[in-house]
Amino acid sequence: MVRNLSSEISILNQYVSELRNVKVQNDRWRFRKNLERIGAVMAYEISKQLEYEINPIETPLGVAQCNQLKSNVVVASIMRAGIPMHNGLLSVFDHAENAFISAYRKHEKDGSFKIKLEYVSKPDLTDKILLLCDPMLATGASMGLTYKTLIEESKPKHTHILSAIASSEGVNYLERNFSKSDITIWSAAIDDELTAQAYIVPGLGDAGDLAFGKKL
Amino acid sequence: MVRNLSSEISILNQYVSELRNVKVQNDRWRFRKNLERIGAVMAYEISKQLEYEINPIETPLGVAQCNQLKSNVVVASIMRAGIPMHNGLLSVFDHAENAFISAYRKHEKDGSFKIKLEYVSKPDLTDKILLLCDPMLATGASMGLTYKTLIEESKPKHTHILSAIASSEGVNYLERNFSKSDITIWSAAIDDELTAQAYIVPGLGDAGDLAFGKKL
Amino acid sequence: MVRNLSSEISILNQYVSELRNVKVQNDRWRFRKNLERIGAVMAYEISKQLEYEINPIETPLGVAQCNQLKSNVVVASIMRAGIPMHNGLLSVFDHAENAFISAYRKHEKDGSFKIKLEYVSKPDLTDKILLLCDPMLATGASMGLTYKTLIEESKPKHTHILSAIASSEGVNYLERNFSKSDITIWSAAIDDELTAQAYIVPGLGDAGDLAFGKKL
Amino acid sequence: MVRNLSSEISILNQYVSELRNVKVQNDRWRFRKNLERIGAVMAYEISKQLEYEINPIETPLGVAQCNQLKSNVVVASIMRAGIPMHNGLLSVFDHAENAFISAYRKHEKDGSFKIKLEYVSKPDLTDKILLLCDPMLATGASMGLTYKTLIEESKPKHTHILSAIASSEGVNYLERNFSKSDITIWSAAIDDELTAQAYIVPGLGDAGDLAFGKKL
Repeated sequence: MVRNLSSEISILNQYVSELRNVKVQNDRWRFRKNLERIGAVMAYEISKQLEYEINPIETPLGVAQCNQLKSNVVVASIMRAGIPMHNGLLSVFDHAENAFISAYRKHEKDGSFKIKLEYVSKPDLTDKILLLCDPMLATGASMGLTYKTLIEESKPKHTHILSAIASSEGVNYLERNFSKSDITIWSAAIDDELTAQAYIVPGLGDAGDLAFGKKL
Repeated sequence: MVRNLSSEISILNQYVSELRNVKVQNDRWRFRKNLERIGAVMAYEISKQLEYEINPIETPLGVAQCNQLKSNVVVASIMRAGIPMHNGLLSVFDHAENAFISAYRKHEKDGSFKIKLEYVSKPDLTDKILLLCDPMLATGASMGLTYKTLIEESKPKHTHILSAIASSEGVNYLERNFSKSDITIWSAAIDDELTAQAYIVPGLGDAGDLAFGKKL
Repeated sequence: MVRNLSSEISILNQYVSELRNVKVQNDRWRFRKNLERIGAVMAYEISKQLEYEINPIETPLGVAQCNQLKSNVVVASIMRAGIPMHNGLLSVFDHAENAFISAYRKHEKDGSFKIKLEYVSKPDLTDKILLLCDPMLATGASMGLTYKTLIEESKPKHTHILSAIASSEGVNYLERNFSKSDITIWSAAIDDELTAQAYIVPGLGDAGDLAFGKKL
Repeated sequence: MVRNLSSEISILNQYVSELRNVKVQNDRWRFRKNLERIGAVMAYEISKQLEYEINPIETPLGVAQCNQLKSNVVVASIMRAGIPMHNGLLSVFDHAENAFISAYRKHEKDGSFKIKLEYVSKPDLTDKILLLCDPMLATGASMGLTYKTLIEESKPKHTHILSAIASSEGVNYLERNFSKSDITIWSAAIDDELTAQAYIVPGLGDAGDLAFGKKL
């Protein structure tokens, strides 16, 4: 299933407009904060699909029957660009477990590239709800590889794949390769074009560089 | 209209359960953060009802048509207990204007009390969307008086009245006294009982004291 | 005692430069955040003068002798402009008690004004450390009146009066009217000029308007 | 040079006491926030040693001569435990560039382990001020290897190595292997003991697990 949040009216669209805007992007702090807020909004929308249980809670004045989160949530992000969204997800699910993965594009001399995974830190995912974020879902290849690596030893109950901006091609790639019952794809915007260098157009440029500065 | 968010499944219920819990309340920081998060969630839900306009935004790689917030939002809170929710609302609508009002219960020797307004700081509200928060909506009297005072010189297009925990009586009071086309009442929980001292039961106790410490 | 932090080299000066800058001020969120960060820095510097006690703390691997805050801190601010600094102070002293006071300039037709106090919410201050903030210390009159009102029923051990930008005149006013053993004045910058309308020059304009929007 | 902040009186000691406390550690959110606050305090103290330049800044009412940060700061952290401190450093130096490195202990069957580096994302460091953080400085081996890897292609002007809790052995290791003119070691506490498994005693346990949950 794909949940394209740009087709729904909310303040999320304002955040995306600021992320994209070349004149606003020079404020790295605001750029990171907007990714954080997008993460927080997605976490909240996902929370509507989770399991809760009613427990009696003692207040200073009586006992209240309260719904408390029963699902075990794991917040995961692809380094380094995923960190601000990760922080936003974690601000909503502050008790969650966490996973971090590094993936990068290894560029060849002919201009092509391969996805390489390096650092993988993850908990047991069995029967948990996995929230896996990367601000840009371009070809979908690194996200697909990351997802496969994460669920190798233990299988989550369901995985939500989250991006701020996705390409149609990236969404299609994930839908083609993974079962609808296993993953839900969320994006705050879906753009049609993908360049030969796998940049989303109009997109926003390189989210990692904009949040954290250029890499050597 | 009343939007009782406890009847919808979301992580908001977890936050309310922590607010209510005597064992968690001794952490003032978490108490304030939970009020902030409730404010942020409500702001986001309200943002789905606001007006947007599509503008062309220049990205580093092209031009994107983006929805940007057109409504003028004013975030208002009743001192002092409203400040954490105010901070949460403002974290979502960071460009908003703001209003602050102080209201308090002046207790008489016979145990009764009157609501008194003191400090009122507000912008022109004409045709704006007013978000007015106070964590506890008990009798509704102080909220009603605050709302009336705020809109004396200038009338907002619509007002959203927000509380973390409301009493049924408080909700009824506002519905009886104000037009449905003018106000929407939002609460993260609605409790049935109200003591003679106007404390909501089971409620959570005194939100101002829990967030900021006892007053002289 | 006066602690003029602009005479010491630190990142605080960068924050002040952003607060003052007309081109940066249009970002209300950054404006508030810079006031918050100035509050946090001042809280930290003040924390070096507080009392601590060594307690044994059980870690998962042993027992550590740790210094824990013994002083009772009260964070106080003058509404509404003081709220962002208040939030910063409270982010450092998250266990603190709080006070809020509203003071405003009641303008007469002849252009003169009087300071009026309205809302006062405060705890017992006996033997506590009071941190009282307002981003602009202009004539010092409203700060002086606020301070006097706060300590009417209970006397703190010491009071730190905090502003982002003070005028020399405001600093002199406080030094003339209060004992050095009772108060310490902190400012991130001290400007020489004060206009007839009591605006600090070069200052930054109206801190309340810049953080929260114009008032009616 | 070693700057042991536990020998100086400040609220930092309170944060360390909460980090260490088994009874407080079950709140992962507070654990991360305390690491963030320690990062922010260290960033601020380091900011006193950086270079600034005076620039004229136009305010709404005049021109102010302001000190603005001239040094180019790079915030770096060792994954995954370093992220909360990284967030704190970045909250102070919001314009900074960033580096992320993953290092882990590869355990052998005999109980020994080797440090392995994987993900390295870094900017050109030439003549910049590098802030490199990891909450626990145990043997110093992974920090030393990380530092060497970071400066391979480009040399910073100076590097500040930051930890929340260091062992004396780790501090000695870094002092033995690197020049005092190149690095300054900062820690919020220095503990004497290091177990055969390289855990600091009394320490606080595993900072990564406490912040983010156990790894598979």
